[in-house]
Amino acid sequence: MPAKKLKVFSLGGLDEIGKNMTVLEYANDIIIIDCGVAFPQDDMLGVDLVIPDFSYLQKNKNKIKGVILTHGHEDHIGSTPYFLRDFQVPIYGTKLTLGLVGNKLKEHNLSGVAKLICKNAGEDFAVGKHFVIEFIRVTHSIADSVAIAVKTPVGTVIHSGDFKVDYTPIQGDTIDLRRFAQLGIDGVLLFLCESTNVESRGYTMSERTVGVIFEDIFEQSPNHRIMVATFSSNIHRIQQIINSAIKHKRKVLIMGRSMVNAVNTATELGYLDIPPNILIDVSEIKKYTDPELVIITTGSQGEPMAALSRMASREHRQIEIKPGDKIIVSASPIPGNEKTISHLINELMRVGADVIYEGLMDVHVSGHAKQEELKLMHALIKPKFFMPVHGEYRHLTQHKELAVTMGMDKKDVFIMSNGEVLELTAEKAKISTTVPSGQVLVDGLGVGDVGSIVLRDRKHLAQDGLMVVVAGICMDDGRCVLLSGPDIISRGFVYVRESEALMDEAKKVVTDSLYSCNSKNIIEWNYIRNTIKEDLKNFLWQKTKRNPMILPIIMEL
Amino acid sequence: MPAKKLKVFSLGGLDEIGKNMTVLEYANDIIIIDCGVAFPQDDMLGVDLVIPDFSYLQKNKNKIKGVILTHGHEDHIGSTPYFLRDFQVPIYGTKLTLGLVGNKLKEHNLSGVAKLICKNAGEDFAVGKHFVIEFIRVTHSIADSVAIAVKTPVGTVIHSGDFKVDYTPIQGDTIDLRRFAQLGIDGVLLFLCESTNVESRGYTMSERTVGVIFEDIFEQSPNHRIMVATFSSNIHRIQQIINSAIKHKRKVLIMGRSMVNAVNTATELGYLDIPPNILIDVSEIKKYTDPELVIITTGSQGEPMAALSRMASREHRQIEIKPGDKIIVSASPIPGNEKTISHLINELMRVGADVIYEGLMDVHVSGHAKQEELKLMHALIKPKFFMPVHGEYRHLTQHKELAVTMGMDKKDVFIMSNGEVLELTAEKAKISTTVPSGQVLVDGLGVGDVGSIVLRDRKHLAQDGLMVVVAGICMDDGRCVLLSGPDIISRGFVYVRESEALMDEAKKVVTDSLYSCNSKNIIEWNYIRNTIKEDLKNFLWQKTKRNPMILPIIMEL
Repeated sequence: MPAKKLKVFSLGGLDEIGKNMTVLEYANDIIIIDCGVAFPQDDMLGVDLVIPDFSYLQKNKNKIKGVILTHGHEDHIGSTPYFLRDFQVPIYGTKLTLGLVGNKLKEHNLSGVAKLICKNAGEDFAVGKHFVIEFIRVTHSIADSVAIAVKTPVGTVIHSGDFKVDYTPIQGDTIDLRRFAQLGIDGVLLFLCESTNVESRGYTMSERTVGVIFEDIFEQSPNHRIMVATFSSNIHRIQQIINSAIKHKRKVLIMGRSMVNAVNTATELGYLDIPPNILIDVSEIKKYTDPELVIITTGSQGEPMAALSRMASREHRQIEIKPGDKIIVSASPIPGNEKTISHLINELMRVGADVIYEGLMDVHVSGHAKQEELKLMHALIKPKFFMPVHGEYRHLTQHKELAVTMGMDKKDVFIMSNGEVLELTAEKAKISTTVPSGQVLVDGLGVGDVGSIVLRDRKHLAQDGLMVVVAGICMDDGRCVLLSGPDIISRGFVYVRESEALMDEAKKVVTDSLYSCNSKNIIEWNYIRNTIKEDLKNFLWQKTKRNPMILPIIMEL
Repeated sequence: MPAKKLKVFSLGGLDEIGKNMTVLEYANDIIIIDCGVAFPQDDMLGVDLVIPDFSYLQKNKNKIKGVILTHGHEDHIGSTPYFLRDFQVPIYGTKLTLGLVGNKLKEHNLSGVAKLICKNAGEDFAVGKHFVIEFIRVTHSIADSVAIAVKTPVGTVIHSGDFKVDYTPIQGDTIDLRRFAQLGIDGVLLFLCESTNVESRGYTMSERTVGVIFEDIFEQSPNHRIMVATFSSNIHRIQQIINSAIKHKRKVLIMGRSMVNAVNTATELGYLDIPPNILIDVSEIKKYTDPELVIITTGSQGEPMAALSRMASREHRQIEIKPGDKIIVSASPIPGNEKTISHLINELMRVGADVIYEGLMDVHVSGHAKQEELKLMHALIKPKFFMPVHGEYRHLTQHKELAVTMGMDKKDVFIMSNGEVLELTAEKAKISTTVPSGQVLVDGLGVGDVGSIVLRDRKHLAQDGLMVVVAGICMDDGRCVLLSGPDIISRGFVYVRESEALMDEAKKVVTDSLYSCNSKNIIEWNYIRNTIKEDLKNFLWQKTKRNPMILPIIMEL
């Protein structure tokens, strides 16, 4: 029997590699690190979420021993409700992470469907016969984040999770650099490390620096209402806002569903420290003057349905932005959101608010390690093999280069695609096979029922709209006779009222193509339908240089 | 008779204000500064271009004395073909600007339709009875750019156009700071100044600094093919690439239609200096080895149809990217293009190319003035009134603040919306009326036939697709009897093959709602149609949480 090998590969993700789900397999044991979602790309019209393709896992269901979570961000936990419908396995995580998973399962009516097993940083626990897991404390933009060390029969694997090196975190311990050093000394076979900020020089600043700026802003704005928009998961950011509020004798109102949920969960679990009588309900807002209020809200990405956007456009039932409001957008744009955020800032300013955003003041810091922090981790761990993850191809390439400048051999660094399998023994690593790793699209309640054909049609309809041609015909002596119509219904094509002449001409084209079929003695339905479609398509292209979807509906009367 | 006033206002534009077209009106004279396009926003599905609403100009056709262009970028000249269909007025500009306008009119089969009048920087010329124009040399990312001084009966108006302060331009004179100073000394009533980079501290670097970096890259890449993607209008950038190519004994291949056009026009007009035997045709590429070649190409914004993207995805007929190619993306993302550019960089790297982009090296500089340059202009001109333009509301707000810190009175600074009219005498300025300034959408050959209803339908179709319900009925004794169908045709909704059960249920819903109308003795067509639509909509929402467009087609047989 040949020696067993450890297999490591990633599932899910779009342009980003190794982000949503990483799988480790040895003999009859599979463990899964993270279970997240990706957000749809611009051309995935109407799609809500993208989850990993579970088909490899389906085929190896009996091997799966557990899911291990690094932290509670959506791209790491968001697929759990979809995963748990098919797989009954325990989920391991830290307290806050599991609290957020619990909320998510409740929303999907899946409470109790899985065993959620809470582990602390520093604890060892076995999962399956061949894996021993250890959580290692890291600092990140959500509390209670960990890296994961997996002791396997062929050696130790470290997965960094998402991290930065914050020596002065707001709450809890700092990143456990000594543990990474010790594991490095003992020998690490494979290091999977996140690459989000690998293109940025230097160090990411401590979360605490943002608190200092908040303090300045509060100090300088004694007469106005203060609003802060940030990510609901950034518990430490929220804590700092609340600290400033307390100091300046302001009450705090939490707005936006996800913000309320996050604050509740974090408070219950002890991750937020809020004295009594600080939080108020929106119904009490009229009791307080502007200088007595801080509003913490969702909508920092300019999402049109989030609280802040609705307040700006006067669509929010309880709160309106007014001149003089001091509004801090404490976030940076997730790539792709630049324009919506800019639009929001414009709207807020138009109403007369004083808006402070990244670029004007340092009201946000990243949660991810920049080059010098990544180098620190490499210097402590010095793995035998290295797999950059959590980034687009450009980031992984940069991260490889960073590792090589620190002395790694190029051939020991593996830039993988999602689905590509790295096979490891204690001595060797190589890319072997590939497993299915496509994306599964979630739209409404449907999982996987929207695919490339549906998206192609949506794109076609989005570009040029639709024209439905309706005609009633009868067959008389082998010729088709038009009994009713042709009628034309168009949507998303042109203003019909201003284009009556065009529509009349289009009807004539349809009539002509019906009779041209007659003159060729064609009575085959599909042929007639296609002739109409082609003739109309050519006519419309010539007249408008547009190409609407054409649906001919011919009924025999 | 009351004293006449000068009116100044902007037309066109989306989030950006005062960018595409500025109008000056005095008595019976109107002049128009710039005639550009805006690019459609994400929610303007299928729209190609956005041009200004000309309706105010239509109503005052006889007053229009000319169009004055600051430079040849699309957002300043792109509407000329649409404008000239309705207005026969002369167009004034510098040589290169008019060369580019000429190309554009040729493409639209409009050559000769307008008088193009070439003026040099420094020249005075009268337009109408009341305006004397002077072009003032500025530096920008396209050659031959000017600011415009307009002497009017109430005072001098200066429009900055787009500019940066480049003391060492690649070709031609530097920005004519002394002229701005002299005009300032003589007295400037109103200054309209661009605001693109007002959020950036410091100075924009000289175009020449990019050439130094190019030189380094050429020096360090003696063995590989070099490709540079940049904006086709950036003639000075192209000149610098060609200079490096000559020095390193490489031939230059120009790829992409707009790049070929721009290089031809600039060469003919003397803005590019290319010795003979440097440019080669794509058919000759096999004659040269990689170290003998530089390719200058379009596609720096990741546009999927541009030459570079097609080379990366192996869809280009003549050129394929290969491992070792040194590719410089010499541009920064236009807001909204971040993801497509990132995607392009990933694709190029995947093929094995070595990609250099902004962030890794300084292979691009902006063409717009940063804070210190803007302050310099304000210090020289010291206008009586100031109108920040060319920017979103956030930028104009920042620019106002900049002017105020330099000593202007808040009440003398006017942040306008497009269409808002500033009325000026020699002493006073105030916002008076508003003229129509909506956007006109261009889709294919259609100008203005796509509006909010069409876009709303496209959006609806893009989100959830379409369901057409077809039924043939007859009326028998005041009851409708289903003779054929109901049949359902869906597009962009679900994979039909995997959703047969859903479709069968949907048909049943339609049948039921027809008969429910019967049982209520309803024979009103529209009512029946709406009942089917509502019932089906509710059914689909409950089953799928999606909301496709539903088109019921009921024929009486």
